[in-house]
Amino acid sequence: MLGNIRVVLVNTSHPGNIGGAARAMKNMGLSKLVLVDPMDFPSSDAIARASGATDILDAAQVVGTLEEALVGCTVALGTSARDRRIPWPLVDPRECASLCLDQVAAGGEVALVFGREYAGLTNEELQRCQYHVHIPSDPEFASLNLAAAVQVLVYEVRMAWLAAQGQPTKMEKLETTAILDTKPVTSEELELYYGHLEQTLVEIGFLDPEKPRHLMPRLRRLYGRSGITKLEMNILRGILTETQKAARGEPHKRRKD
Amino acid sequence: MLGNIRVVLVNTSHPGNIGGAARAMKNMGLSKLVLVDPMDFPSSDAIARASGATDILDAAQVVGTLEEALVGCTVALGTSARDRRIPWPLVDPRECASLCLDQVAAGGEVALVFGREYAGLTNEELQRCQYHVHIPSDPEFASLNLAAAVQVLVYEVRMAWLAAQGQPTKMEKLETTAILDTKPVTSEELELYYGHLEQTLVEIGFLDPEKPRHLMPRLRRLYGRSGITKLEMNILRGILTETQKAARGEPHKRRKD
Repeated sequence: MLGNIRVVLVNTSHPGNIGGAARAMKNMGLSKLVLVDPMDFPSSDAIARASGATDILDAAQVVGTLEEALVGCTVALGTSARDRRIPWPLVDPRECASLCLDQVAAGGEVALVFGREYAGLTNEELQRCQYHVHIPSDPEFASLNLAAAVQVLVYEVRMAWLAAQGQPTKMEKLETTAILDTKPVTSEELELYYGHLEQTLVEIGFLDPEKPRHLMPRLRRLYGRSGITKLEMNILRGILTETQKAARGEPHKRRKD
Repeated sequence: MLGNIRVVLVNTSHPGNIGGAARAMKNMGLSKLVLVDPMDFPSSDAIARASGATDILDAAQVVGTLEEALVGCTVALGTSARDRRIPWPLVDPRECASLCLDQVAAGGEVALVFGREYAGLTNEELQRCQYHVHIPSDPEFASLNLAAAVQVLVYEVRMAWLAAQGQPTKMEKLETTAILDTKPVTSEELELYYGHLEQTLVEIGFLDPEKPRHLMPRLRRLYGRSGITKLEMNILRGILTETQKAARGEPHKRRKD
């Protein structure tokens, strides 16, 4: 299914960006790269930045015009940073991915079209695309690196593809609300706590420094995901202090006996 | 709000990746970069790849340890490509962004922590992070370029931030279902149609080649977003053929008179 989605780079100046795009594609399970009139290709810079995705560079199709690059495509989506005089159907990267998956599921072929590093796609090229994709960047600094733009779009394609396959995007379920609290502790406070906890566990003979096994990592994981508040931390630290006193045979603070 | 989310790069080898990360951050509205023991910084390669995001490089904080980089943070999320012996709370980039926004909304500070180009984060460093983030790459080719990984995470942060602000991620509403159809036409078929249409419009005197105004772009936009099926295309082409015949004074095919 992902084989029916091609990445088209138009008139790329820097071969490093072609390599970076190839790597991003292979990371996300895409393989079909089409280069329209690249300025410098093949190139050792492209191979270096591809970092092992050389199979995609080797199989890349080099053509002279965007028209040739789109042969067989049922939908082309062109990346665009600018407002145009005539508004065009515009999608964000997530909608772009959804369109891609719908289209290939219906037996179509899709092209994701990326323009020049400095000038993007021409109006004529953009009019060859049924949709324009805009990556919602900061308007004050809107232009992404070419390979980075490819990375964002193919990442969204993979997320949509995994969802369509019923495959998880991660290996474990998680309660995202667990971390929410009003006054969360800082990393330093947590580290102080772990230090205190470890020392205490040694003192009470529960942790053998010679054979620590995975005790501290397991405790870090537990507390790390618990979203401890400052109040709770005071309680936990208080417990440790009292535990140490008990282990050392010191008198209890609160008990009156 | 985005000012309370920092990007932490640990022991980066290639300064170009630091520059690429800075550019990605600035594109997405983030500004706080912390470098833990970088191999080569400051560097002209970083400045070149930052492509104008030099303010972020100039303001970058350089520290010796991850612990220093996390001072003041309430949650740290570390990127991880590998399965670990002890499973850790794991999120995908979208959940990571959601956690970031929840956390800063609660007055916290968040660190997104990225490891070395070839070796990632050590187990000790990962244990300093309450969550691990995994970008769902192809298991056969899983390792993203460092700047590309930063791009994916900060892109998701921006998407979540725009949603939280009630801001659109694009400029226009779109019926994503409009494109769905069983047998979509290809780009070539559409181009042939546009050629035929333009010729016909000239023949019937509707389009003046000397003053085309925006007629063809407007028609391209209309048909481009319509998700035309092969059957519909046959109809449209048939209409044009008959229109041309009429304009040329040729006899009609079907009418018997």
